[in-house]
Amino acid sequence: MSDQATRPVASAAKSLPKKAAFDFRKYRPFAFAPLLPDRTWPSKTLEKSPIWASVDLRDGNQALIDPMTIEQKMRFFETLVEVGFKEIEIGFPSAAQVEFDFARKLIEENHVPDDVTLQVLVQAREHLIARTFESLKGAKRAIVHVYNSTCRIQREKVYGKDKDEIKEIAITGAKLLVEYAAKYPETEWVFQYSPESFSQTETEYAVEVCDAVCDVWQPENGQEVILNLPATVEASTPNVFADQVEYFCRNLAKREHVTISLHTHNDRGCAVAAAELGVLAGADRIEGTLLGNGERTGNMDIMVMAMNLFSQGIDPELDFSNMSEIVQVVSECNNLPVHPRHPYIGELVFTAFSGSHQDAIKKCLDYNEKHIEETENVWDVAYLPIDPAHIGRSYQDVVRINSQSGKGGVAYILQRNYGFNLPRWMQIDFSGVVQKQAETAARELQNDEILQTFEDTYLQQGSFELLDYTVNNKGGKVYFNGQVQMNGDTINIDGTGNGPLSSFIDGLAQHTGKSIHVINYAEHAINPQHSDVNSDGNGIDDGTNTDNKTNANAAAYIQLNVDGEVYSGIGTCSSTVSAMLKGALSAFAQAVNTAAA
Amino acid sequence: MSDQATRPVASAAKSLPKKAAFDFRKYRPFAFAPLLPDRTWPSKTLEKSPIWASVDLRDGNQALIDPMTIEQKMRFFETLVEVGFKEIEIGFPSAAQVEFDFARKLIEENHVPDDVTLQVLVQAREHLIARTFESLKGAKRAIVHVYNSTCRIQREKVYGKDKDEIKEIAITGAKLLVEYAAKYPETEWVFQYSPESFSQTETEYAVEVCDAVCDVWQPENGQEVILNLPATVEASTPNVFADQVEYFCRNLAKREHVTISLHTHNDRGCAVAAAELGVLAGADRIEGTLLGNGERTGNMDIMVMAMNLFSQGIDPELDFSNMSEIVQVVSECNNLPVHPRHPYIGELVFTAFSGSHQDAIKKCLDYNEKHIEETENVWDVAYLPIDPAHIGRSYQDVVRINSQSGKGGVAYILQRNYGFNLPRWMQIDFSGVVQKQAETAARELQNDEILQTFEDTYLQQGSFELLDYTVNNKGGKVYFNGQVQMNGDTINIDGTGNGPLSSFIDGLAQHTGKSIHVINYAEHAINPQHSDVNSDGNGIDDGTNTDNKTNANAAAYIQLNVDGEVYSGIGTCSSTVSAMLKGALSAFAQAVNTAAA
Repeated sequence: MSDQATRPVASAAKSLPKKAAFDFRKYRPFAFAPLLPDRTWPSKTLEKSPIWASVDLRDGNQALIDPMTIEQKMRFFETLVEVGFKEIEIGFPSAAQVEFDFARKLIEENHVPDDVTLQVLVQAREHLIARTFESLKGAKRAIVHVYNSTCRIQREKVYGKDKDEIKEIAITGAKLLVEYAAKYPETEWVFQYSPESFSQTETEYAVEVCDAVCDVWQPENGQEVILNLPATVEASTPNVFADQVEYFCRNLAKREHVTISLHTHNDRGCAVAAAELGVLAGADRIEGTLLGNGERTGNMDIMVMAMNLFSQGIDPELDFSNMSEIVQVVSECNNLPVHPRHPYIGELVFTAFSGSHQDAIKKCLDYNEKHIEETENVWDVAYLPIDPAHIGRSYQDVVRINSQSGKGGVAYILQRNYGFNLPRWMQIDFSGVVQKQAETAARELQNDEILQTFEDTYLQQGSFELLDYTVNNKGGKVYFNGQVQMNGDTINIDGTGNGPLSSFIDGLAQHTGKSIHVINYAEHAINPQHSDVNSDGNGIDDGTNTDNKTNANAAAYIQLNVDGEVYSGIGTCSSTVSAMLKGALSAFAQAVNTAAA
Repeated sequence: MSDQATRPVASAAKSLPKKAAFDFRKYRPFAFAPLLPDRTWPSKTLEKSPIWASVDLRDGNQALIDPMTIEQKMRFFETLVEVGFKEIEIGFPSAAQVEFDFARKLIEENHVPDDVTLQVLVQAREHLIARTFESLKGAKRAIVHVYNSTCRIQREKVYGKDKDEIKEIAITGAKLLVEYAAKYPETEWVFQYSPESFSQTETEYAVEVCDAVCDVWQPENGQEVILNLPATVEASTPNVFADQVEYFCRNLAKREHVTISLHTHNDRGCAVAAAELGVLAGADRIEGTLLGNGERTGNMDIMVMAMNLFSQGIDPELDFSNMSEIVQVVSECNNLPVHPRHPYIGELVFTAFSGSHQDAIKKCLDYNEKHIEETENVWDVAYLPIDPAHIGRSYQDVVRINSQSGKGGVAYILQRNYGFNLPRWMQIDFSGVVQKQAETAARELQNDEILQTFEDTYLQQGSFELLDYTVNNKGGKVYFNGQVQMNGDTINIDGTGNGPLSSFIDGLAQHTGKSIHVINYAEHAINPQHSDVNSDGNGIDDGTNTDNKTNANAAAYIQLNVDGEVYSGIGTCSSTVSAMLKGALSAFAQAVNTAAA
């Protein structure tokens, strides 16, 4: 066979490394990219889910410090079935007794639903294949996955065999599968072959080997066949892998009769990208694991790829609505942590600390709520690729406050959790207070700390308190008469205005001799939008009483100009008028206390 | 401006989701991919490093639960300089006092080397820009990075402005940079503009905005300009992002006068892929962080991309030879863990538990050692993309043993750590023992446990011991006479043969009445190849004495057929003959003890 045309290889670097210990000259550029200038995959778009095959219990398991016990494997298997996997590689039954026993347990105890197919891996050697079929006796349908390594490194250094001899191993394995399958006719057998290290194999040679395997299996005569193309070690940029896949699909003799599967690893951090581009390039099926467990850097993460499809309106054909339970099973069985930035599931991936991000999220959510009809309820929010609620995450996660945060985030916390809908001028006032607190603390602030600061700043100004009062509406004017407690003294206030607020302000001004004007004013009923708020015993209706509107408080926000300086205040009360007056008193109290300080 | 031609959008899925709570129909396909059928990037190959810009201290910092203190920022900055970064974004000085103070500290205390340029971020608003230039007063050279968000979501929902109004924000910001730079002529100013959320912006519109910014800055007249294209939220497959970058580069009026920079995030797990394909598509510069810290799922991981280049023989222009120290600084300052499967640096990424992987690694390393001339010392090892030693990792990491492991791995451990170079038949014998032990333990076995099992199995067979002996060579025959201790009895052995071993075996057979034949035999000096072996006080020369050859032991491996059953044994001694005889006695002892059991 003539050598395959490959695209030119990057020239090896010549310059000297800075340190002998960090010598890039010990490596060579990737040399197995097929020449494919007329590739078609870059113009394609993902339109539907591939067939998913979980290899958690095989490739994932074999890479664990402590492999799973049979009980853990069983728990993991049941979770995979619940998520919706229809093809599950359960192990390498010929390699260890525990692997064999697990296959027997699944089959003999009827743990495999009718629409789920077990898959097992085996090398192309007769005594292992015999043992493998034995492990699957009684299965309704099963995939026997046979492999041998085809890449140059392994041919030369591990096996010391040439291309024809390596191909012969594959053909022998293929024939053995036919032979042993015939001994167990009660099972519907699917044959799978992997040219292991496909991505580091000359693609033309991989086609040659797979054509030879197909000649034995004859998929055109009804035998179900899967050809699985592993990036056993990720060794190139993902576009090159996609070229390899497209080249393979185009040149395989019996392409239309077989299922093309991909199996990528994450050595260069691009396993998901390689799988996605590989599907564009023609693959039908994806092998991977949940959370990307697997040899070394791991297998491609099926959960991430499925959620990527989900986030574009494509049915992932897997159900991750119980994500937190799924993640718990996976991380407990694997005994591996979940990184806080793991896409879709890390603790921090829906969190915005940055002020501008918080602000934008709040505005988008508000916009969508107001325009629910015209947006067709489509999710379209800055900085949040999906609605966290879709995988069981709380809105509490989204906005968290530290010194990098801004008015939008603080306002979001107060609104979502405590029902305070601060007007913009109030947000600016309060975010300055919170930012100073966060800088001093040099850490994240918890929601209840923010509420405490809010109350300390606005609701509990020294010993200022509104006592009994009367408001008389007479002849188009409003007369206020009442008592206010100010730093220990009880003071009579009499004033006149167009309404309760202006008459109260008039009285305050008369009594204290200060110039006082109302700059801004806003008021609303406290009615948290979400029921997952804290019930923290702070005396403020926190949403647990939203069904009982008689308990709902009003919140009033008042901005005063007192002797030329601006002060903002807040009042809450079951009476809207009292809330307003208390708000004014709160702002006034700050003026008095600031002057006294 | 007419609407841009975009490639067709995938049709939104119609079928019903399994659960209302997990409703993919709430999402829409990505709609901002430019139509670019004549793209050129897929045929290109990475040939050199891009310009690297670290945003750890800005984008990374703003996404931390507890932002860094000034002391932590300083420690991180010094590490970035040591690694070799020449452009470092240090913060958002106008947004918080701590950010401003850090800029002042770096400049006033002369912490910035002459070849390192500080970069700071600022929104396109005058009072923030004024404060930003103030923070950089006295810098030799600095990049002022101004941005505003240009994507549809933000235009419509966050700003409520149309395309022209949003462009006007960018132009205003650009003009302000020119104006304020003129006030600080002692600094060499570089201007950077980001159309934030570039990847979710219509690419043609992003070009229009950036063209307008360039018209203000006039890079063709000598002003250094960087245009930075953020995937603020990763929202498409990485090939689409590459199309956007190529479209942008091709259509930007003053392309040849500006530096094109990319800034990708990892929401779909493909940030590194997007950056790599984006460089193929024409970008010159990459912003990212070490270990991929950053908003939500993180920024792209510069360490991974640099190591990807390194692994292909390309000078990464960053030095990660002290990787463990670098990782320690990063993870301590960020207060975030490192996942065990993080590419290149996770605890498990150079580890093989699987038997076939271990076997292949061992064979490749052996091959390379034997063929060091013809392989030009190039690294080319199955399952290991780079030599772990290049980033300070030990060979100890590479092979670890559990129930999934095979003979190659066990042999590797004994060879690398303890100097035992087991012949293949001995590997098979011992790996069966170890696999049973690992299955029973249901966990990983430590190296010293494996050595202990090795000694228990072969070196301490009950109370069998070789005592004094004489070997006489007379008339072409060899006569053995000596004593052996067997389970408490001291026994005289006399035998004849062609050499010491055959005469000893003859004597054993005569004395015990058993049929004994030697099947296999191998012997070597114990000489561990690596100096990082354990000195574990086990009495075996463990490599600490490799300079003193007089202390070196011989190890002999003997396989006997005793009454039709096969037994393997090992003997070690400073005398090669005694080692051999002890090995035979070890195998014979197993035969006796097995029969007795």
